[in-house]
Amino acid sequence: MYKTVIEPRVSETDGVGHINNTTVPVWLEAGRNKLFALFNPDNSFKNWKMVILKTTVEYKQQLYFGANVEIKCWVKRIGNSSLELYEEIWQKGKLSAKANTIYVNYNIQENKSETIPIEIRNELENHMYEEVLCE
Amino acid sequence: MYKTVIEPRVSETDGVGHINNTTVPVWLEAGRNKLFALFNPDNSFKNWKMVILKTTVEYKQQLYFGANVEIKCWVKRIGNSSLELYEEIWQKGKLSAKANTIYVNYNIQENKSETIPIEIRNELENHMYEEVLCE
Amino acid sequence: MYKTVIEPRVSETDGVGHINNTTVPVWLEAGRNKLFALFNPDNSFKNWKMVILKTTVEYKQQLYFGANVEIKCWVKRIGNSSLELYEEIWQKGKLSAKANTIYVNYNIQENKSETIPIEIRNELENHMYEEVLCE
Amino acid sequence: MYKTVIEPRVSETDGVGHINNTTVPVWLEAGRNKLFALFNPDNSFKNWKMVILKTTVEYKQQLYFGANVEIKCWVKRIGNSSLELYEEIWQKGKLSAKANTIYVNYNIQENKSETIPIEIRNELENHMYEEVLCE
Repeated sequence: MYKTVIEPRVSETDGVGHINNTTVPVWLEAGRNKLFALFNPDNSFKNWKMVILKTTVEYKQQLYFGANVEIKCWVKRIGNSSLELYEEIWQKGKLSAKANTIYVNYNIQENKSETIPIEIRNELENHMYEEVLCE
Repeated sequence: MYKTVIEPRVSETDGVGHINNTTVPVWLEAGRNKLFALFNPDNSFKNWKMVILKTTVEYKQQLYFGANVEIKCWVKRIGNSSLELYEEIWQKGKLSAKANTIYVNYNIQENKSETIPIEIRNELENHMYEEVLCE
Repeated sequence: MYKTVIEPRVSETDGVGHINNTTVPVWLEAGRNKLFALFNPDNSFKNWKMVILKTTVEYKQQLYFGANVEIKCWVKRIGNSSLELYEEIWQKGKLSAKANTIYVNYNIQENKSETIPIEIRNELENHMYEEVLCE
Repeated sequence: MYKTVIEPRVSETDGVGHINNTTVPVWLEAGRNKLFALFNPDNSFKNWKMVILKTTVEYKQQLYFGANVEIKCWVKRIGNSSLELYEEIWQKGKLSAKANTIYVNYNIQENKSETIPIEIRNELENHMYEEVLCE
């Protein structure tokens, strides 16, 4: 599992007094940096590979300014060129949001999806979500 | 249907060269301003009503800087206290993203969901999504 | 003067209940789209020209969700390769923020600043800030 | 000096390929969390104190995705109710942005500025910018 700790920012709250719902996808993407680097080790945008296809976010608890959050990112399914992530956001011991997100390994220059290379696939398998253990 | 025109901003793009995926939920929320005002006519945050429960976003086409986008927001289903939206983002004649989003009518002070009042329900019915006509 | 109307978004507010201060530079940049297009008519990022050097923002009045804002962008000074903007944000008849911002006309590929072409200079002169008339 | 380490996000870059200029004020504000907590220990927005009056940001070097940044925040001047910060953003050993920012200690309920209490003043003095030592 890829784990990222984020300190909430005032600019990420909204007038209702909590973290705005649009901040959640921003944090989830921030939690994928190590995954992105796996496909694109030099972090260059010219060779960017991971293109998002779909995301479902469930808001379970309000998130607050003033306490760190933990973003957990598991791999749920590895397809030929696509992969599905399962992600959770925790704050003060509470599961506050969860998401399922599908990415495709895409060659932007040639405008086509590409098979996920075996070395990356092997590494991704170290981050698989095991339903029984983790919930 | 609630329709909102948005002019993309440089700050909403990312290094890959398109609109960043996290901008899409921001634009979708921006497209709900009239809906929010229906539940909370003075736009005060103290009496804020609409709390998001879940959203699913599908990314169909890249979105670009340099051309306006149109956010379309329909009501798909009206429950007792919750409602489901169906939303689309169009740019240059292409459906670029679509979303299904569930909100609940929530009393933040008393910390409980509330029945959607009949007058709001009647107004929401003017914005229902009709699958045959619109797709 | 370049004028842009923006409808504030919930995500642009913060917990204190107003528009967050970091939204102001975002809106100011949004108000420069026509200026950017003058230097880069096809809006491509490959040939992007305008690079920011410095900005000073003064916060005069709180900005609110629920009423449109107007971004006004004047050219204050045109140098050889740089230009200075004077910008104002108005809401409900009040000057809420003002800014002075310096950009340079930069060739990103060759990594050097470039003289502002005469045709652009002529067009910029149509947007000069005239202190007496405008304040 | 208050020091905050931030891992850049894809959503904070723009089409030109670097961190967008509007991200810099966001990071600077994120670097003020300990300062905000000094004035408002429970981080509640109801008792929020620090209101920004003015900020000047100088962009010295491009900031990139793929390497952490360090936000350094010093107190430059303590007035009766206001204070001036001097802030720097460093990446890979380079000073990439710097800022001068003025805040006022403001009572939002009573709508007036307040003298900075002596205990806070004493603590702020531990974070003073010493020009000779630090540049």
